[in-house]
Amino acid sequence: MRLLLISNSTNAGEAYLEHPLEQIKSFLGGTMVNALFIPYAGVTISFDVYTSRVRKRFQEIGHDITSIHETEDPVRAVQHAQAIVVGGGNTFHLAKLMQDQGLMDPIRKEVLAGTPYIGWSAGSNMACPSIRTTNDMPIVEPGSFRALNLVPFQINPHYLDANPEGHAGETREMRIEEFIEANPGMFVVGLREGTMFLVQDGTIQLLGPKPARIFRKDHVPQELGPGSDFSFLL
Amino acid sequence: MRLLLISNSTNAGEAYLEHPLEQIKSFLGGTMVNALFIPYAGVTISFDVYTSRVRKRFQEIGHDITSIHETEDPVRAVQHAQAIVVGGGNTFHLAKLMQDQGLMDPIRKEVLAGTPYIGWSAGSNMACPSIRTTNDMPIVEPGSFRALNLVPFQINPHYLDANPEGHAGETREMRIEEFIEANPGMFVVGLREGTMFLVQDGTIQLLGPKPARIFRKDHVPQELGPGSDFSFLL
Repeated sequence: MRLLLISNSTNAGEAYLEHPLEQIKSFLGGTMVNALFIPYAGVTISFDVYTSRVRKRFQEIGHDITSIHETEDPVRAVQHAQAIVVGGGNTFHLAKLMQDQGLMDPIRKEVLAGTPYIGWSAGSNMACPSIRTTNDMPIVEPGSFRALNLVPFQINPHYLDANPEGHAGETREMRIEEFIEANPGMFVVGLREGTMFLVQDGTIQLLGPKPARIFRKDHVPQELGPGSDFSFLL
Repeated sequence: MRLLLISNSTNAGEAYLEHPLEQIKSFLGGTMVNALFIPYAGVTISFDVYTSRVRKRFQEIGHDITSIHETEDPVRAVQHAQAIVVGGGNTFHLAKLMQDQGLMDPIRKEVLAGTPYIGWSAGSNMACPSIRTTNDMPIVEPGSFRALNLVPFQINPHYLDANPEGHAGETREMRIEEFIEANPGMFVVGLREGTMFLVQDGTIQLLGPKPARIFRKDHVPQELGPGSDFSFLL
């Protein structure tokens, strides 16, 4: 199984998909790949426009995408995909459309059988056992919070440390502490912007300039940088 | 029907329930009320500790609370409540426990029949048609996103304008724009910290020092201050 699970598409002040572009290129390898793109997290952007934005970036690195919304038979498209790419947006919207179209089991099966999977933001959340560590607003109600369960831990993408000054709502850490309280035994990884996990051949590696923050009930949160051993998560 | 729907319990730098305390006092009136408290949004705080914190503040203003977790028959407690108070915390946790205990219909019925309702944060979200404009992490999966439907619009509590500097995740406004895109026709009110809605006798009034921000699909978001006419929401 090969996964590239990216916290976010775009760092503040940078171009779209700029920070992970070299990693995506190296993950897909030297031969041109036409990946299947799943744009269903997009809500205020049309699937066509979303697909164009992503296609442009993939073409710059010698690859291409076909969006699942352009295919006649989405399940068949999954079964024949050279790689699967799940973009960010609203995780509930993504989960609902993937479930409604019966894509959950087919995607899981293909990725477990070796189809490379790239996700960012909502797309990284979808690789986890459930969507219960998303930051997104539950704007639509999916049939279930279950996700693809490709890794046995939960990612919190766009992990951030602070609230804006003068704001008293829960910090991200408080939200994740609620999650681990309600879900003892689960690991949650706060994946900061600009960072990603590369999972392949039974190994897991953090890439990017910042440490990840690991949460588990009854444990003090732990900061682990790139180069650390994350194998306990698998 | 009488509702006091408060954005947040606590402003940055203030004591717990300080900003809405005078409004709660005036809402409950001159005769001592022993309100039924629903602490089910609490996750990292025990229901006992949560109840003590709220009780202390209510006693300071000449009232008291009994928590529903201390009662033998929660539905009966709702039916006999002098007032119902729903505290903040995690909205999904609150919805799940209220639904699992069969409290949704009984509470709605009593409040429509005149039992005063006070909510803050998650407790204000629960007064809306659904919990789909919560900011909370979906740490547990409720049977449904349906809420008490006491008002026909959605509140986004703890509404805030900006992200922390250097963070590229969606702003609150972007999240709400996703909601109205997916739910055309619904009004969403961004209720800033320190503010609240008083609904009574078919009228609605914004209280507090800041304007509310009103969202609806195909409309430019609108800032309406205290004293404005919010009757279009009802």
